[in-house]
Amino acid sequence: MSANWERYQKYLCDCPEAGMLIDVSGMAFNDDFFATMEPAMQEAFNAMTALESGAIANPDENRMVGHYWLRNPGLAPDSGIAAEIEFSVRAVKEFSAAIHAGEIAPPGRSGFTRLLVIGIGGSALGPQFVADALGGASDRLKPYFFDNTDPDGMDKVLAEIGPALAETLVVVISKSGGTKETRNGMVEAQAAFDAAGLEFAKYAVAVTGAGSELDKAAVAGGWLARFPMWDWVGGRTSVTSAVGLLPAALQGIDIDALLKGAQVCDELTRRRETRSNPAALLALMWHYATNGRGEKDMVVLPYKDRLLLFSRYLQQLIMESIGKELDLTGTVVNQGISVYGNKGATDQHAYVQQLREGINNFFVTFIEVLQDRPGKSLEVEPGVTSGDYLAGFLQGTRKALAGKGRESLTITIERLDAASIGTLIALYERAVGFYAALVGINAYHQPGVEAGKKAATAVLALQAKIMARLSSQPGVEFTALELAGAVGDEGETETVFRILLHLAGNPDRRVLMARGATIATSRFKSA
Amino acid sequence: MSANWERYQKYLCDCPEAGMLIDVSGMAFNDDFFATMEPAMQEAFNAMTALESGAIANPDENRMVGHYWLRNPGLAPDSGIAAEIEFSVRAVKEFSAAIHAGEIAPPGRSGFTRLLVIGIGGSALGPQFVADALGGASDRLKPYFFDNTDPDGMDKVLAEIGPALAETLVVVISKSGGTKETRNGMVEAQAAFDAAGLEFAKYAVAVTGAGSELDKAAVAGGWLARFPMWDWVGGRTSVTSAVGLLPAALQGIDIDALLKGAQVCDELTRRRETRSNPAALLALMWHYATNGRGEKDMVVLPYKDRLLLFSRYLQQLIMESIGKELDLTGTVVNQGISVYGNKGATDQHAYVQQLREGINNFFVTFIEVLQDRPGKSLEVEPGVTSGDYLAGFLQGTRKALAGKGRESLTITIERLDAASIGTLIALYERAVGFYAALVGINAYHQPGVEAGKKAATAVLALQAKIMARLSSQPGVEFTALELAGAVGDEGETETVFRILLHLAGNPDRRVLMARGATIATSRFKSA
Repeated sequence: MSANWERYQKYLCDCPEAGMLIDVSGMAFNDDFFATMEPAMQEAFNAMTALESGAIANPDENRMVGHYWLRNPGLAPDSGIAAEIEFSVRAVKEFSAAIHAGEIAPPGRSGFTRLLVIGIGGSALGPQFVADALGGASDRLKPYFFDNTDPDGMDKVLAEIGPALAETLVVVISKSGGTKETRNGMVEAQAAFDAAGLEFAKYAVAVTGAGSELDKAAVAGGWLARFPMWDWVGGRTSVTSAVGLLPAALQGIDIDALLKGAQVCDELTRRRETRSNPAALLALMWHYATNGRGEKDMVVLPYKDRLLLFSRYLQQLIMESIGKELDLTGTVVNQGISVYGNKGATDQHAYVQQLREGINNFFVTFIEVLQDRPGKSLEVEPGVTSGDYLAGFLQGTRKALAGKGRESLTITIERLDAASIGTLIALYERAVGFYAALVGINAYHQPGVEAGKKAATAVLALQAKIMARLSSQPGVEFTALELAGAVGDEGETETVFRILLHLAGNPDRRVLMARGATIATSRFKSA
Repeated sequence: MSANWERYQKYLCDCPEAGMLIDVSGMAFNDDFFATMEPAMQEAFNAMTALESGAIANPDENRMVGHYWLRNPGLAPDSGIAAEIEFSVRAVKEFSAAIHAGEIAPPGRSGFTRLLVIGIGGSALGPQFVADALGGASDRLKPYFFDNTDPDGMDKVLAEIGPALAETLVVVISKSGGTKETRNGMVEAQAAFDAAGLEFAKYAVAVTGAGSELDKAAVAGGWLARFPMWDWVGGRTSVTSAVGLLPAALQGIDIDALLKGAQVCDELTRRRETRSNPAALLALMWHYATNGRGEKDMVVLPYKDRLLLFSRYLQQLIMESIGKELDLTGTVVNQGISVYGNKGATDQHAYVQQLREGINNFFVTFIEVLQDRPGKSLEVEPGVTSGDYLAGFLQGTRKALAGKGRESLTITIERLDAASIGTLIALYERAVGFYAALVGINAYHQPGVEAGKKAATAVLALQAKIMARLSSQPGVEFTALELAGAVGDEGETETVFRILLHLAGNPDRRVLMARGATIATSRFKSA
């Protein structure tokens, strides 16, 4: 028997309950690696047990971390939380059923046919991934997304919806209820409904924390419905809360199967025997590959079109969770693992050239789906199907990479459906938690995000000052340097210049630009 | 005046001809960096001049590299090539006009309304990027793509097209004419047309090299039209050939403007004064950031929804061009630059946490578009638009990253249209060429891609042997190890096992699996 086959069998993690195999034999760890890591892994299991029991696993924000309860409310630390989870799943299903049945319908129409989800980050990537992975031509409601504050992007979506706006249910998702991109998307959507003579409140639903700005707006406006978010669910792990379940259920996806798939995986990943715990295996492989310090990038290559957005979803889940300056003791560690990828075999024609021959700064996670399609396949050559090619390319690329000493692991699932999507989501949620424990960081906060928001707020405040100054002296021309001085901060001249360029690039803002000897000495005035 | 503003002005590359600014002041190079690199840069200019004049710039494949001629046929080294380019652009426009006018129409319908592009890699990413960036609700033909050999993925697209298949023009793109994924896509599409009682040839167009397998099939089948590919255009730089122009023109995009935008940028990037050449600046910054060895990842963050696919396009263009084992002297260098990114502000809610606080293994390229939308913007707060937020978040994130010593450069364009998309494409094509010259590699071949294809072919050959063996003894059970031995290669037991799992996962293949004590000892038989 070959050494390869022996190693394959030795480390194969077979999870028939979830129809999943994890093969780590393509990672070049030594046989003693597991023994070396075992004490740290047992600590990670302890931390996870505490987290699941309601410990304050997110100490900076003094919060419990409860996304595993969403799939098994009986685990929740008190019966109030369990009841809230159960109530919200029931509410999602009842509301969706009423929408599908036309019991809740838009004014003057027999029912809703479109779904516009407005959210960003944790309130968009999960719903988008699930919608693309499990949706299609037979969706009960066809989904669209506002996931940014790009005016043109929103216009494009609204143009695609077109007159069907009158049959479009809008779900606004913001945990805090105060996310500016989402608020802006809501305002732009509302304006589109107004312009079409439609009363926005009759089309609008909120998913948000009780008492948030968004929640209050929904109450005051008399929206169709509100669904809860809780402070013990983080945005990037909220896809099995109403954040992900409501859009999925509205689209017609079997959310019970999704939750069940996640729950089955949660059970598997509670095993304290490392090698039979698929999430522990993943976390250990990440640690091995990156030396516990993010030294290699994680390339995610699912050989399935419907998993195209999985790497984007994982970028958020992994990078926002692991990319931290400080560890739990307050030591500067600058942790992180960079994640990218799209899908195979497609990416073989894009960057596998570099993966095989170029800089060896990555490890690959192949994701294989055994079932090619629900129905019968035609032969594209005698005895060979398109799916055989897909499977052959996966194996071929693994071998080609291994031939040059590039490491990979492979996750195999039987078929792509709501249950296996739930399983994959739960698998990575848990792996991230274990990995964070192994490297001693808080996976559940995001302190680095605030700085950018604050700086943006300061830029907008500066813009207001500039506009006030320009319009107080209409026709008078200023350079960026002069205006920066006039508003009291020459150190921000570049910021001022960029603000002016942006305003001048949009005629409706009525700021005119006259080029100077160089563009940086251009003069600006209020029209 | 602040030092920042001085540095900003000193290094700003202002290209009013293209409505583009390149700001590299956020990269922390020393003032003597340009002087140090100048001799190498001049060599790069020389190499580019030779390439544009028809030198064999791709020596391994003994080919000229002619994508710049596509935008300026007068540059081509002989009049035959120039005439071919001009003829093909004219043919694309005439064919598209005939389609739009209904002069070429599907049997029994007044005109085509859908476009199915079948291609992969260099024959898909460019068309997809352009389609998403410039298309929308008013497309003349609504585009769909087969860009893989995933059966379910193709089924999903066909289901979305639905009965409109009868009005769907199919454009099959393959330079070599023998790419398996594309061939499979064509076979599956043809089967769908057959099943709908539609004669495929009346809907089909080929873009391929003269005399290729695909070309012959198109001739033999009497397809609607054929458009040329040439061996002097590489797949990843083919978007300004018929590969990109035909789908774009059919969709209704202004391909003259696209070509013009590329041509304008080509002129700018022929400047031999480094600091006024935007592509030279980019290449130098890549060299500075990555130490000329790919030591940092390139994160591409366009703050514009329509540029979402640009990073995917660039992954191919940059990684396939730069990711090389050998330099031009045959020395092992394992070059490469890893590229990823989606769009801002969205990604701020995903992985900017890691970019600011985590591992400092990247540099960011911000792409800013000054025009928010063609029309007037509404105020989401007094005096503030959604676009102001987008611009503010870009500035805020740059500052937040700079505050932690993370480097970035910023490309600003006036507006997003066919011309600026042409400019961006040409900018990066040239930057890749310069960078390759700086590090001494051939940017125009992809020797590492063959290994995976060969390995995949071997896997499919092994599958044929296994299926033959199983069906020759129906009902007889084999383990993977036994079958591997039976077909003569126990060293390939893992490959055999994976093939068997895949076959057993698809009931129509009639391979039955009975689990053993472990999954690896399962027994398989022909049903």
